[in-house]
Amino acid sequence: MNFRSDNEAPINSKILQAIVDANNNFEESYGYDSYTLILQEQMQQLFGCWCDVLPLTTGTAANSIATALTTPPYGSLFCFESSHMNSDECGAPEFFSAGAKLIGVAGAQGKINIELLDKMLAGTGVHGEHECLPSAISLTQSTEAGTLYSLEEIKAINKIKQKYNLHLHMDGSRIANAVAATGCSIADMTWKNGVDLLSFGATKNGAMIAEALIVFNPKVGKEIKRLRKRSGHLISKMRYVSAQLLAYLKDDLWLELASHANAMATQVYSTLKDSHEFIYPVQANEVFLRLPEDKIAQLQSQGIEFHVWPGSTDIIRLVFSHATKETDVILLINALK
Amino acid sequence: MNFRSDNEAPINSKILQAIVDANNNFEESYGYDSYTLILQEQMQQLFGCWCDVLPLTTGTAANSIATALTTPPYGSLFCFESSHMNSDECGAPEFFSAGAKLIGVAGAQGKINIELLDKMLAGTGVHGEHECLPSAISLTQSTEAGTLYSLEEIKAINKIKQKYNLHLHMDGSRIANAVAATGCSIADMTWKNGVDLLSFGATKNGAMIAEALIVFNPKVGKEIKRLRKRSGHLISKMRYVSAQLLAYLKDDLWLELASHANAMATQVYSTLKDSHEFIYPVQANEVFLRLPEDKIAQLQSQGIEFHVWPGSTDIIRLVFSHATKETDVILLINALK
Amino acid sequence: MNFRSDNEAPINSKILQAIVDANNNFEESYGYDSYTLILQEQMQQLFGCWCDVLPLTTGTAANSIATALTTPPYGSLFCFESSHMNSDECGAPEFFSAGAKLIGVAGAQGKINIELLDKMLAGTGVHGEHECLPSAISLTQSTEAGTLYSLEEIKAINKIKQKYNLHLHMDGSRIANAVAATGCSIADMTWKNGVDLLSFGATKNGAMIAEALIVFNPKVGKEIKRLRKRSGHLISKMRYVSAQLLAYLKDDLWLELASHANAMATQVYSTLKDSHEFIYPVQANEVFLRLPEDKIAQLQSQGIEFHVWPGSTDIIRLVFSHATKETDVILLINALK
Amino acid sequence: MNFRSDNEAPINSKILQAIVDANNNFEESYGYDSYTLILQEQMQQLFGCWCDVLPLTTGTAANSIATALTTPPYGSLFCFESSHMNSDECGAPEFFSAGAKLIGVAGAQGKINIELLDKMLAGTGVHGEHECLPSAISLTQSTEAGTLYSLEEIKAINKIKQKYNLHLHMDGSRIANAVAATGCSIADMTWKNGVDLLSFGATKNGAMIAEALIVFNPKVGKEIKRLRKRSGHLISKMRYVSAQLLAYLKDDLWLELASHANAMATQVYSTLKDSHEFIYPVQANEVFLRLPEDKIAQLQSQGIEFHVWPGSTDIIRLVFSHATKETDVILLINALK
Repeated sequence: MNFRSDNEAPINSKILQAIVDANNNFEESYGYDSYTLILQEQMQQLFGCWCDVLPLTTGTAANSIATALTTPPYGSLFCFESSHMNSDECGAPEFFSAGAKLIGVAGAQGKINIELLDKMLAGTGVHGEHECLPSAISLTQSTEAGTLYSLEEIKAINKIKQKYNLHLHMDGSRIANAVAATGCSIADMTWKNGVDLLSFGATKNGAMIAEALIVFNPKVGKEIKRLRKRSGHLISKMRYVSAQLLAYLKDDLWLELASHANAMATQVYSTLKDSHEFIYPVQANEVFLRLPEDKIAQLQSQGIEFHVWPGSTDIIRLVFSHATKETDVILLINALK
Repeated sequence: MNFRSDNEAPINSKILQAIVDANNNFEESYGYDSYTLILQEQMQQLFGCWCDVLPLTTGTAANSIATALTTPPYGSLFCFESSHMNSDECGAPEFFSAGAKLIGVAGAQGKINIELLDKMLAGTGVHGEHECLPSAISLTQSTEAGTLYSLEEIKAINKIKQKYNLHLHMDGSRIANAVAATGCSIADMTWKNGVDLLSFGATKNGAMIAEALIVFNPKVGKEIKRLRKRSGHLISKMRYVSAQLLAYLKDDLWLELASHANAMATQVYSTLKDSHEFIYPVQANEVFLRLPEDKIAQLQSQGIEFHVWPGSTDIIRLVFSHATKETDVILLINALK
Repeated sequence: MNFRSDNEAPINSKILQAIVDANNNFEESYGYDSYTLILQEQMQQLFGCWCDVLPLTTGTAANSIATALTTPPYGSLFCFESSHMNSDECGAPEFFSAGAKLIGVAGAQGKINIELLDKMLAGTGVHGEHECLPSAISLTQSTEAGTLYSLEEIKAINKIKQKYNLHLHMDGSRIANAVAATGCSIADMTWKNGVDLLSFGATKNGAMIAEALIVFNPKVGKEIKRLRKRSGHLISKMRYVSAQLLAYLKDDLWLELASHANAMATQVYSTLKDSHEFIYPVQANEVFLRLPEDKIAQLQSQGIEFHVWPGSTDIIRLVFSHATKETDVILLINALK
Repeated sequence: MNFRSDNEAPINSKILQAIVDANNNFEESYGYDSYTLILQEQMQQLFGCWCDVLPLTTGTAANSIATALTTPPYGSLFCFESSHMNSDECGAPEFFSAGAKLIGVAGAQGKINIELLDKMLAGTGVHGEHECLPSAISLTQSTEAGTLYSLEEIKAINKIKQKYNLHLHMDGSRIANAVAATGCSIADMTWKNGVDLLSFGATKNGAMIAEALIVFNPKVGKEIKRLRKRSGHLISKMRYVSAQLLAYLKDDLWLELASHANAMATQVYSTLKDSHEFIYPVQANEVFLRLPEDKIAQLQSQGIEFHVWPGSTDIIRLVFSHATKETDVILLINALK
């Protein structure tokens, strides 16, 4: 039973079938195929607005191209202190932006403390050219802690964005889980409340290798294709990436898959909340639990796979995916009891 | 009938099946899956030596990480003047190497003029720190002109490499076509004659999205994984890339597919060589022909797809792939007559 | 009366005279002049060891070339959270290192908390290639708070450096003040206790435009001249920079000038320590004082120039230099009373 | 007798005196001093237009910041194939622009062949995002060959600039020699004919360490101060750089010094033109002569210093400066005869 990461899950069968179906004769390469063209339209329908869609193969590429688009080399981007961009991308955002500075903002529950963000930004500008220019904010939705920014919180961050004349990026590696969990529209969660660019993830939620950078603000997205090519991210047989994303969007498969993953996490939480210590509120598809060390060892000996959280010996992370079986979750709950 | 690019061909059925077969339960992510581990061994068997294998999704990524590994920011890399790296990667090698200089070397038949290369290198070093440090040579095999470096030519370049204490990279986007065409071993074509790193292509020759950077020289490959991650090229569900490469190697499928493509090109050449002007010798899977402009228009009107070569109005490029049908080639030849 | 910054002070007369004296006929350019050659020897005598001396014109250039030498693009450098490198160089270390990550370490009195540094480093390495590689530590001596790392503290940091296999850089923008204040040898303060590279400042302490990067560890300093040239820091008429540094070293002028600056700061401290709140211990040539806001306004109205510390309204910084007049300090003390 | 480089000449006495005179009490640092403020005005008077003036210490810094301002990382800059920027700055323009591509354009007499430039640009754009975006042209005036672009040539290049929507930079390391030689106004030579940015050199023509980047096009110069700081080129005691430039401009000292240097070169040319082979027309302060190898050795044995041109054994370069003595030139001419 694998609860280690949604990255370890297989491909959803409909998405795999879409790859097989796309394997039909010749198609233009480098993104000028019919799948990619249709994807552009489908995404615009999904979001209910103009947007530029850049199919990619990794979330790190999406986040990093977004950084290059929003933050000049002499600029700074504010993000949660232990966000994926700041901690787990080996400096990719710095690389793509030619050395911009990521400034970590502390906060509870895996989220930026909004008052602190405001205060940090208010303190900039006193040292002229000696300081990096505050240029962007990046949020992760759902967060690396399995929590969510509420619409109210996104609106509050949008106000700060406007106050300081910044750009707003959302790392939506697990955006499907966020939309499925809240039931709010993806438009409300993004461009209607100030998000200029979204890293739209699909791989963790059932695709094989498929992500997209969605640019809502046309002023930001200049030369986005050259940035992709120049970083080696222009896939020649792009149709196979776009076909995955088309299948992912079709009949709201993306929400169906995410809802399942969320439901599995919720089941663990609702069953054990009175008996166990949950580190963060369970709002999406991740669960962080404190357990006695011998209990952890016992679970491992039963073949239950998960991460013991780095820096701790008694906190485990459980991730639920589109492929998590309900029967496995019942076994997990019993083992945890 | 599509002769525009091998990038426009579909996936070979065995490789597609390998993806389907890999879609089985959970697997470790980020390259620690069993497919990737086995690939490392299989590649070492293929080359008959130790090597480090970095699965990737584009040739540009492979070439650019190779540049970063061989050429410091203050260094220069010598390559054919209109090679893919120098002309068609939007500055990706410069980006990955933090601004190294690519120096184009002229030559006939899409190949570096070896005497000229030697002369250019001999002229360096007179201006100390004002000059970039000559650091690497890169060859494309088979070349962008559909020609081949002979083993003797590779040996001559290896001598120059040693004379000036450089590294040698081979852009093997179509290495399969080169090996299939010459019948010489891939070991002879690479590490046995001084190649330190090889961009091993598979996408153009039947894979969906699968390339690999092969590092033969352990001194060169330090921190290769961090370079991959940092450029956004660490695929989370790596098993699906490695599974393609395993299928590609199995039972020499890679040579079988390339041999077919080469044979199609050769058929055009051998049939038409006395009546038509071929721009370059036809040695792999690409054909460059001079044709009257009205003939070009006539072919296009017949639905035959190809590139009119940029900068010319009377030169066309025909590319043959693993998926080119022999019947189409016969129709093409008749149309060309 | 200017206590705003030692950067605002004029050139010491002996150093100015050295420039005038160097203006004598023709001299080789780009650092091959006789002054620069002699400087190399003089610095080796000063430090009592082999070292490579790179004359420069700014401390930011010295710090940033040091970062490029110690920290690869995929690496991280640990420094005090509000150190000059991290806060006041507009991302120059990130630029020169092609995007390495500076990690701010908290601490009291403007100094890295050594236990925290150890703990932070101990927490690295769990996430493989997803993390930046810890590569270097940088200390500022004397610190931006006007305090000093004791020899014991430097030794403790050296142990951490060795434990984690890092490089150690010292930002010695005000190294003269540190050596003058402690009386310990500059060799002890640097290479004898693990410092691999020193940014040796002179501009703040009486030079016109003259700094040097001193490399003690030959493994670190490879191609240091190309890094200088490539960042536009190779001065053609280098003799005028080196002549300043030679005059600065001659007869220990550097220590004489720093001793004066330190003595001025000490005089303020020793006179007012019982009546005023000093934010940090006064150990070099800077004084941070808390004052009522109306008192601050009163001082300003008297023409006394200083910085009100950014982020505060009641903390002022007073900097004393080689050119600070003792009579001005007496007037200052009276005004502060 | 030194004819090796104008970089080896001493400081003009008026400029040295200006440094001495500036050494008077305290002044604001980092470019907010009164000298730098006045310089801004003086330069605007000189050019007869608004311009932004960035004092710097090297021409490489000026050229490289200009590249960063005009050419995005995915862009290309067209310059003479063996221009200083392309050949002698160790990749600094590539570094500052985060990896833009410099494309060398061939031509006679050290100048870009204008028809060829037009043809090369006309050939771009066929390969979309796979190509770097043509972004800028850079001219050197006077050239590295001691020749000049005529006003007509500059106008022709301006037309090409406009045709392809590019920016135009002038490397004016020896702009004074060009203006003095032609008698045309510096405004005509620059902004009135499309030059967006000028690297305005002074060091080679009598200053100690002083250059400036002049930005005529306000759209280009955004965040120019952060680019300077971030590359370590913000001099704390800026007054001493600006004071040099003020003295350089005063009473047209810059033209007086350059006129002298030019006259010395002209004297050699006019005396020897019938008997000797001059490689390039002598239009500024540099002379390239072909001489028998034994003649070269004889001159060297007489203590006459010059460069034998790299790559040749029978071509010498003689550079004349503000400090070249007329008596030395007479001795030189006699020795050459």
